[in-house]
Amino acid sequence: MNQIPGIQRPPRQIVDALAAIGSATASSELYKLGIRDPFIEGAAPFTRGRRIAGPALTLQFMPKREDLYGEDEYSDREKQLHRHVLYDAQPGDIVVVDARGDMSSGIFGEMMLTYFAGKGGIGMVIDGCIRDATKAFETDLGFWMRGTTPNFHTQTRLMPYAVNTPIACGGTFVVPGDIIIADDDGAVSVPIDLAEEVIRHGSEHAEWEDFSRIQLAKGGDLRRYYPLAPEAEGEFEQWKRENPDLAAKAK
Amino acid sequence: MNQIPGIQRPPRQIVDALAAIGSATASSELYKLGIRDPFIEGAAPFTRGRRIAGPALTLQFMPKREDLYGEDEYSDREKQLHRHVLYDAQPGDIVVVDARGDMSSGIFGEMMLTYFAGKGGIGMVIDGCIRDATKAFETDLGFWMRGTTPNFHTQTRLMPYAVNTPIACGGTFVVPGDIIIADDDGAVSVPIDLAEEVIRHGSEHAEWEDFSRIQLAKGGDLRRYYPLAPEAEGEFEQWKRENPDLAAKAK
Amino acid sequence: MNQIPGIQRPPRQIVDALAAIGSATASSELYKLGIRDPFIEGAAPFTRGRRIAGPALTLQFMPKREDLYGEDEYSDREKQLHRHVLYDAQPGDIVVVDARGDMSSGIFGEMMLTYFAGKGGIGMVIDGCIRDATKAFETDLGFWMRGTTPNFHTQTRLMPYAVNTPIACGGTFVVPGDIIIADDDGAVSVPIDLAEEVIRHGSEHAEWEDFSRIQLAKGGDLRRYYPLAPEAEGEFEQWKRENPDLAAKAK
Amino acid sequence: MNQIPGIQRPPRQIVDALAAIGSATASSELYKLGIRDPFIEGAAPFTRGRRIAGPALTLQFMPKREDLYGEDEYSDREKQLHRHVLYDAQPGDIVVVDARGDMSSGIFGEMMLTYFAGKGGIGMVIDGCIRDATKAFETDLGFWMRGTTPNFHTQTRLMPYAVNTPIACGGTFVVPGDIIIADDDGAVSVPIDLAEEVIRHGSEHAEWEDFSRIQLAKGGDLRRYYPLAPEAEGEFEQWKRENPDLAAKAK
Amino acid sequence: MNQIPGIQRPPRQIVDALAAIGSATASSELYKLGIRDPFIEGAAPFTRGRRIAGPALTLQFMPKREDLYGEDEYSDREKQLHRHVLYDAQPGDIVVVDARGDMSSGIFGEMMLTYFAGKGGIGMVIDGCIRDATKAFETDLGFWMRGTTPNFHTQTRLMPYAVNTPIACGGTFVVPGDIIIADDDGAVSVPIDLAEEVIRHGSEHAEWEDFSRIQLAKGGDLRRYYPLAPEAEGEFEQWKRENPDLAAKAK
Amino acid sequence: MNQIPGIQRPPRQIVDALAAIGSATASSELYKLGIRDPFIEGAAPFTRGRRIAGPALTLQFMPKREDLYGEDEYSDREKQLHRHVLYDAQPGDIVVVDARGDMSSGIFGEMMLTYFAGKGGIGMVIDGCIRDATKAFETDLGFWMRGTTPNFHTQTRLMPYAVNTPIACGGTFVVPGDIIIADDDGAVSVPIDLAEEVIRHGSEHAEWEDFSRIQLAKGGDLRRYYPLAPEAEGEFEQWKRENPDLAAKAK
Repeated sequence: MNQIPGIQRPPRQIVDALAAIGSATASSELYKLGIRDPFIEGAAPFTRGRRIAGPALTLQFMPKREDLYGEDEYSDREKQLHRHVLYDAQPGDIVVVDARGDMSSGIFGEMMLTYFAGKGGIGMVIDGCIRDATKAFETDLGFWMRGTTPNFHTQTRLMPYAVNTPIACGGTFVVPGDIIIADDDGAVSVPIDLAEEVIRHGSEHAEWEDFSRIQLAKGGDLRRYYPLAPEAEGEFEQWKRENPDLAAKAK
Repeated sequence: MNQIPGIQRPPRQIVDALAAIGSATASSELYKLGIRDPFIEGAAPFTRGRRIAGPALTLQFMPKREDLYGEDEYSDREKQLHRHVLYDAQPGDIVVVDARGDMSSGIFGEMMLTYFAGKGGIGMVIDGCIRDATKAFETDLGFWMRGTTPNFHTQTRLMPYAVNTPIACGGTFVVPGDIIIADDDGAVSVPIDLAEEVIRHGSEHAEWEDFSRIQLAKGGDLRRYYPLAPEAEGEFEQWKRENPDLAAKAK
Repeated sequence: MNQIPGIQRPPRQIVDALAAIGSATASSELYKLGIRDPFIEGAAPFTRGRRIAGPALTLQFMPKREDLYGEDEYSDREKQLHRHVLYDAQPGDIVVVDARGDMSSGIFGEMMLTYFAGKGGIGMVIDGCIRDATKAFETDLGFWMRGTTPNFHTQTRLMPYAVNTPIACGGTFVVPGDIIIADDDGAVSVPIDLAEEVIRHGSEHAEWEDFSRIQLAKGGDLRRYYPLAPEAEGEFEQWKRENPDLAAKAK
Repeated sequence: MNQIPGIQRPPRQIVDALAAIGSATASSELYKLGIRDPFIEGAAPFTRGRRIAGPALTLQFMPKREDLYGEDEYSDREKQLHRHVLYDAQPGDIVVVDARGDMSSGIFGEMMLTYFAGKGGIGMVIDGCIRDATKAFETDLGFWMRGTTPNFHTQTRLMPYAVNTPIACGGTFVVPGDIIIADDDGAVSVPIDLAEEVIRHGSEHAEWEDFSRIQLAKGGDLRRYYPLAPEAEGEFEQWKRENPDLAAKAK
Repeated sequence: MNQIPGIQRPPRQIVDALAAIGSATASSELYKLGIRDPFIEGAAPFTRGRRIAGPALTLQFMPKREDLYGEDEYSDREKQLHRHVLYDAQPGDIVVVDARGDMSSGIFGEMMLTYFAGKGGIGMVIDGCIRDATKAFETDLGFWMRGTTPNFHTQTRLMPYAVNTPIACGGTFVVPGDIIIADDDGAVSVPIDLAEEVIRHGSEHAEWEDFSRIQLAKGGDLRRYYPLAPEAEGEFEQWKRENPDLAAKAK
Repeated sequence: MNQIPGIQRPPRQIVDALAAIGSATASSELYKLGIRDPFIEGAAPFTRGRRIAGPALTLQFMPKREDLYGEDEYSDREKQLHRHVLYDAQPGDIVVVDARGDMSSGIFGEMMLTYFAGKGGIGMVIDGCIRDATKAFETDLGFWMRGTTPNFHTQTRLMPYAVNTPIACGGTFVVPGDIIIADDDGAVSVPIDLAEEVIRHGSEHAEWEDFSRIQLAKGGDLRRYYPLAPEAEGEFEQWKRENPDLAAKAK
């Protein structure tokens, strides 16, 4: 078990910048960079209102084969691979699990989740379920997943198979160390090599966006304000002068 | 693009009467009128506790074909049909989208939704997803849909194809101008020609219903109180005399 | 209709003990007793934060055949079997419905649900939907189900077929009188003959669990605290002496 | 086990008449009699080119619960209910199985199927699979089902639960003794009480149908020949005179 | 009904060239031209061994709404739109139907299919089912579809809605007049404007392919023969000289 | 690419013995050895009537990520991993592919399949599709798969990711070198370490089975002949004496 590979964690400012961008902007920017669909489909936001970003630790499940995953795993808990993805977790990490879409396997329970939260972990993205949901929702973790179940992780059809290797999750390929952005839209995986480019383009803040949103909310013309039409530039400039606080915040 | 057809909007009292009836009563009444299943299945209530009714503007997506929907659509935003369904929106309108059940296409984002809310639009019924969910939920719009995604509307498999033509949504046929009723039970489509009849039957308020509900909540016999049995009529009459306020409200 | 069988209700302390255990522990204990998967998959918790346990009344739907379920059922309501599962409900009962996973049949509406709540019923577990959701959520009932719909129970594809006979619900076999435990993890069915054994094993409270959770939440080592390692026993004993209140509560 | 109910078998001429009509005509006639959808969806024709009709013996599976279906069933084979549906089979019978759509349970294997064929059974309609397919296809039985599997009937998720009770199969309600018609279009269940009426209407042979098919095959106008238009009656009469053999066969 | 639009049919050599290319090569070539997925998924080859190509006539179904599709359609058959897609069929035409994936609606029956075959129609591509399968398979038509059913086209959930308008079929967008290629791999839709380019590239026959296939079948090295490596060119030239007939055929 | 691991092939007699046993018997024997479900669900027999057994070469696909699988793979074909699983194929090998159930990716085309057949490969088990089906079916290979498609392997959502590593296929875990048995019931994976035990138990030929099948086919009593009852032993002995040839063949 000592061969569990670690991950390379990105600098804090990269992660923070991606969190500021959000999953929707990241998805469009990745599309422009050639990544058609970075969305982890099926992992729905269960803890609404959160937005997190962080490097991915990965855990892969496979169909259970009883000659390979049997009684020993219960007698020697250190053989249970899902523990190992948590051992080296660091503050800001996100665990991403290929649970094969299974609805009757509870990948983690409250003790494991409490431990992960205690180490500073910030979220779980699972193409499947957790158990002990009530206590899980009392931790500070964010959860993007398919549902909950009272069953434990190897009770029905799955066995844990690998830690920190590339996985598929919700139809998307996730490499350990890639950066996950998760919010109310769902979770996306940003390939680490593309992160800076996503930030560069995604952060070019549309300075006029807050201005436009205010106008649209008042019934302004979509054609005039989104995107900002040349003939509305003057109006925008005046708004900035009159609302220096709002304009500053928008930067 | 100037050939986008408009819709005929019903008188306000029709819409208000249908909102008062609610989707469940409307569905039963439509069934009695021969419409077997007016329920837009799969568009779940994401903004719980709302009940809205209003005429349907419709937007239809088709499988994307790249020779028909390509780069031009990005350079000339006026070619993006999903904008057009919003241009002529009026207060009280509801947009209904045939998104083909797709879970990785975000039909509308926050700017469009803000614009629609700014024009007085009241809700979205989508056989699919929106993006920018956090900001979307801050508007006054109600949402009945399948989920959320960070992807934009044409990122994966769809392209917008028609505005204000009859569509299928959640297994139900919706004609522009039909009246949508949406609440915590889901959304139904009321054919405009049947609206008055639905109102006539659905509004015949079961005067005894509030009385019965109170008795049932106290452990009263279902056979006696639902529907109100002849032998309970006297009790009901007495209740009305003793509770003039409740009885009046029930009318 | 007078041939509707009743159920044998278990002693209160059995039910209370199972409620205290919760669905996740019950599922593991049942697994050890040879029941691979007691989880009623697909019936999601709609009333989050509840935990209930109680004996199962059962209601079975079948594909509708119009020669067997027709107009008579509307003229003579006593022929509607879904009423009969409620008639003999007692405080603490839970209704479990085989609705065949149907998403366009509202098994119960508000009047029936109010009646059931009035008789002391505590919850509904449905492999399908209810209607009149807004009012339903105002009752004290807990709901584990697939969704909501405005349609009534026999509007589209189903007809009620049997009351208090063994059913399948969410891929699990449920015998009338088996004990349902339902909470945020979902619902499980505990065969009545195994209930005491589940309680005996499930209630052997891991005295150290609260202690461990506290340590894990502070970043303690999973290997030391879960399960409690021998070398942490001394620390645990000291914690008990210093925190008599917490330790007592954990018993 | 001696409480297995038998079925009432219809007179041979009823069965023969229904076989002559075929599943497509039976389905339309049943529709006119108020049965919306008698089609056993999902049970595909695996033995193409056959058309059979006969009374339904039924077998129902339920989700397996290990405390109810365990080792005893293997030691005492008479406890295996799927054997019992075959014991009283008579020539011309068809076995219909509610296998819950399961793709990994082989309801019957070759020895059972050989026995059933030996007793004169003519077909199996299964919302699921058989095993030992190669040998099964060597018998004279017709098979309408979802597929094949090497697994035995209780290997994964199912247990046999009832024999000759009403069941659901492929979304249709089947009562023991109802008459199944199965051919390349699939299988339908004809309620025994409606059988004669179906025959009466379905057998009114459209005398002109063979004439029309010949004309259509030669490029004749659909509007003239299907249904036979008044202006083509003379042509039809002449054809009958010139082709007395064909016209006689069509009767 | 006289407003049914016709289609523009391509020159015979275009169609023949596409038939020669086959669906697999057409799909790759279309991919290179920017069409990601022209495959009509789900319409499986029921008449194995055929390869056809021809212009698409289209027929679109929508969810049935009983106020729009009712008794009149039975009394006045000319209101049944599925007849109209056949009226102007010409030799070589292929009918493509958006049947919404429905498994209980038989879009066409034997008389209509016989008529279509009589007019020279060559195939049906249906995201759904036909009925009267036995007789249908006796015609010369090729069938790519999801299955068969005894039900008629409007028996359960669908109504015909439009003829010769753009449709979705099996997740692909099909414009009337686009050219369908269907064989054992399935059916693809070739946009008419891209047809010549597909032919130009797809027909550049890999002259060495037959040579390579022969070598590979004998155990030749994949790296040497597919694609043909420079070091195998001499061998190929020699083969051509020694096998003039085979080489000529490959051209 | 030179790091592709090879597999250890079992002795010929092991493979032959498993082929003689067939998938159904192997599945039951594996169940008795603790393997609940070795069936590769979803990979249906497309080449009916074959029974093969052989060691598994494995190929794993993952969701495509365009930064990892792009243009280079087309320019340098040696980067295409699906070629590599074939390079070291030996006579009797079977390729098993985790194609993630995808219906629009054609894992192999005719040239690759011809090459594999040329090297003596005997079958393909794919949780997905092939392309060039007509020519593929002309080879001697057996195919167990979900379907066919004209698309190539990386055209839509997949990229090849690993060769000869453990994979999931049709809900079953397959280790390279495990022995696949595939016939009309489908395909099972026999863990190499259990192969001999499966053979030992599975080959204990039920000497009476052929005798019983003959009796059952003639209408014999299931209780008497399956399994062979003690009171039929004498009859069996006599049959053996009278039919020495049949009895010998059954051994």
